Amino acid sequence: MQVLAEIGVLFPNQEALAVFEKHGVKADGQKVFLTEDQVMKAIAQAPAQFTIHARNSERDVRIGDGVPVLAPGYGAPFIVDLDVGKRPATMDDYHKLAKLAHALPNQDLSGHLMAEPADIPPKTVHLQMLHAHIVHSDKPFIGSTAGAAGAGHTMELASILFGRVGERPVTIGLINSLSPLGYSCEMLEALLVYAHHRQPVIVAALSMAGSTGPITLAGVLGQQNAELLAGITLTQLINPGTPVVYGSASTNLDMRTGGLVIGSPEFSMLTGAHADLCRYYGLPSRSGGALTDSHSPDVQAGYESMFSLMTTFNSGIDIVLHAAGILSSFLSFSYEKFVLDDEICGLVRHWLQGFPVDEETLAFPIIAQVGPGGNYLMEMHTLGRCRTEFWQPAVSSRDGIESWMAAGRPDATHRARQRWQKLVAEHQDPPLDPTITRQLQVLVDKQ
Amino acid sequence: MQVLAEIGVLFPNQEALAVFEKHGVKADGQKVFLTEDQVMKAIAQAPAQFTIHARNSERDVRIGDGVPVLAPGYGAPFIVDLDVGKRPATMDDYHKLAKLAHALPNQDLSGHLMAEPADIPPKTVHLQMLHAHIVHSDKPFIGSTAGAAGAGHTMELASILFGRVGERPVTIGLINSLSPLGYSCEMLEALLVYAHHRQPVIVAALSMAGSTGPITLAGVLGQQNAELLAGITLTQLINPGTPVVYGSASTNLDMRTGGLVIGSPEFSMLTGAHADLCRYYGLPSRSGGALTDSHSPDVQAGYESMFSLMTTFNSGIDIVLHAAGILSSFLSFSYEKFVLDDEICGLVRHWLQGFPVDEETLAFPIIAQVGPGGNYLMEMHTLGRCRTEFWQPAVSSRDGIESWMAAGRPDATHRARQRWQKLVAEHQDPPLDPTITRQLQVLVDKQ
Repeated sequence: MQVLAEIGVLFPNQEALAVFEKHGVKADGQKVFLTEDQVMKAIAQAPAQFTIHARNSERDVRIGDGVPVLAPGYGAPFIVDLDVGKRPATMDDYHKLAKLAHALPNQDLSGHLMAEPADIPPKTVHLQMLHAHIVHSDKPFIGSTAGAAGAGHTMELASILFGRVGERPVTIGLINSLSPLGYSCEMLEALLVYAHHRQPVIVAALSMAGSTGPITLAGVLGQQNAELLAGITLTQLINPGTPVVYGSASTNLDMRTGGLVIGSPEFSMLTGAHADLCRYYGLPSRSGGALTDSHSPDVQAGYESMFSLMTTFNSGIDIVLHAAGILSSFLSFSYEKFVLDDEICGLVRHWLQGFPVDEETLAFPIIAQVGPGGNYLMEMHTLGRCRTEFWQPAVSSRDGIESWMAAGRPDATHRARQRWQKLVAEHQDPPLDPTITRQLQVLVDKQ
Repeated sequence: MQVLAEIGVLFPNQEALAVFEKHGVKADGQKVFLTEDQVMKAIAQAPAQFTIHARNSERDVRIGDGVPVLAPGYGAPFIVDLDVGKRPATMDDYHKLAKLAHALPNQDLSGHLMAEPADIPPKTVHLQMLHAHIVHSDKPFIGSTAGAAGAGHTMELASILFGRVGERPVTIGLINSLSPLGYSCEMLEALLVYAHHRQPVIVAALSMAGSTGPITLAGVLGQQNAELLAGITLTQLINPGTPVVYGSASTNLDMRTGGLVIGSPEFSMLTGAHADLCRYYGLPSRSGGALTDSHSPDVQAGYESMFSLMTTFNSGIDIVLHAAGILSSFLSFSYEKFVLDDEICGLVRHWLQGFPVDEETLAFPIIAQVGPGGNYLMEMHTLGRCRTEFWQPAVSSRDGIESWMAAGRPDATHRARQRWQKLVAEHQDPPLDPTITRQLQVLVDKQ
């Protein structure tokens, strides 16, 4: 609050500044100074929970009710594949990734900007990506926040699918702050469009302890809290009640390489503290994911991704962007890791359910019948449950060590490749009204 | 309690049966029936906390005070190496592993039986392994429970190192039950020796839901609780106050392959429930580890190991056997995974510490000085802390993606190999009195 009142936050956008001015917020040029009273009154108007509607209502997702909603990785410029390593993403990749986002059972939102295609002009690439999600999946899609154009096109496409946009949330956009203590003009343009249409936004910081934030994690947390509260306040001044999620992807630099790290304990410490702040403010939270600094789906990618996913779930985060597919400290996306991460999302979700304890499962009569030194394998209690009692992986292997040797020592990455190729090959777009299909295509083609 | 009173537990050992009989416990042949009163009175005598002393007192470990104590993998018959895959372990391997157990910073106990050498006669292999731990490390060592001989030699070696054994815990032995509802004669022999010497034992079950236990997890938990309480009761009837840890490594079968699985959500669910029972009985707990069903240190090994390690820490387990090195559902041990797992143990431990929030770390004056749009990289607040503020990995890579491509796309496994080879090459046995060294050697040689 002291940062907001005394240091201020930069809003380089005339419309945003005009909104603040209209509500009596003190400003100095593009720098805005908010009082605790102004902030707390504004954020009190944002809902603690909301639903994002999908074109298939069975796919609707509820944000903020204690069950984490998962979405694929976001914003990687590169693909890492098993053959050549790092390469630029293409629109062909994007179609495949959108199909996988639809097929993978633990991704609740189909995502956006998973890996940005480099073979489409930057001015229209957001439209191509949005269109891919809308036709390949009936899950809720994340919208574009590529300035006024990206946000505007998101609203146009959504209005074709859902009719007038504004009645209820039908997408969600990611608004990043520009640390320290500012926003880019492009992001503010998008924020304005989303808020005018009463569509949800995640307002999120990616501060780096040691460069765009203080090196101490408490300092990062305090600074980003000021940034985020200022942005969230703006959404409520524009359109009170607009759903907004308080987000963090902040972390530390590795001081030896100068690079951002996301598989670090520091990222996960910030996630936990961030989630506490969200609960304090009564706002839904976004952080975490299956995060790694490795550049391939190797053992490091495995343990770092599971670590950050577990700390995310433990922290009680509401939206988990980057829940699957990300490598290289956000810089690359992997098909193989996409299916592997979706599997570990399922594993963790299953584990969280626990197991039932009742007379039937305590099985005293069976224990008495089998007796000391006996075996349960052929008991009806076993046979009747043997296909359903336990979680079954789709990619992880449980073959014996002799089979593994005989098969030439395959690893999980190669099974993951088989799985994503099969899922892409078997993909069928979910049914969509032909008129809507045509209208969507017309909008995309005219750009 | 109903299982104990009505179904009974097998104790195929005359001395054990005589102890039960002396204390008025009902028996039918080798089957012992305990009442709730007999059990609760016995376990109330076991300490809730105890210290295992090392020959270097700085290495002493406290069991049961809320901080998990970590120990390497235990009991693998095979080594998996990067060149040939699965092969039998040798005594040469064992010396290297014992040196690594000493070097790795997050292993608190030096371990035992990590990978059992196949090139030493079974009758004396326990002595060779014990000797390797004692000379290569001054951490506390786990003792042998290979029948009366293994346990007896453990006490002999310990008495050379520590003088008369019995005053205080100087080792700990792993006593496994034989599910369902029994113990082997060999394990009971060892239990008797440890209890007579008042040395700690872990009494643990490895029931398999679907074969040696009911297919339902609640049933496994109930059955193994009966087994374990019976074994723990025996320790207290022999020598009240003997430290004893209540342990579980129980899990499910994969019903497709018929194999045991340890990277499963079911293993971790049982760990959590088991830890709750330990707290109920006021006994220290053992479960978990860095567990995987994969046969190589691949991405699956990474995510499964981190998953089970996180659930173990979350459950509040006191002793974590298998905290590093295990592959293949307990069947193999890997040098590379040993150092990788030790690193993730350190990562999780660091994360659990959290970060300080105070005036210094909140850094308001620095935030004010840098201001909106500034950079912290060259601030004294940053420079003065840049070597110490963040956790630093020894194996995980944080190189950039271009460096990774230029280096030929190395993975973490290859860095792990470099690290263990370096640690073994640099190993020096910690100093030990020459008379003790000679006495130990005489005992080993005379067998």
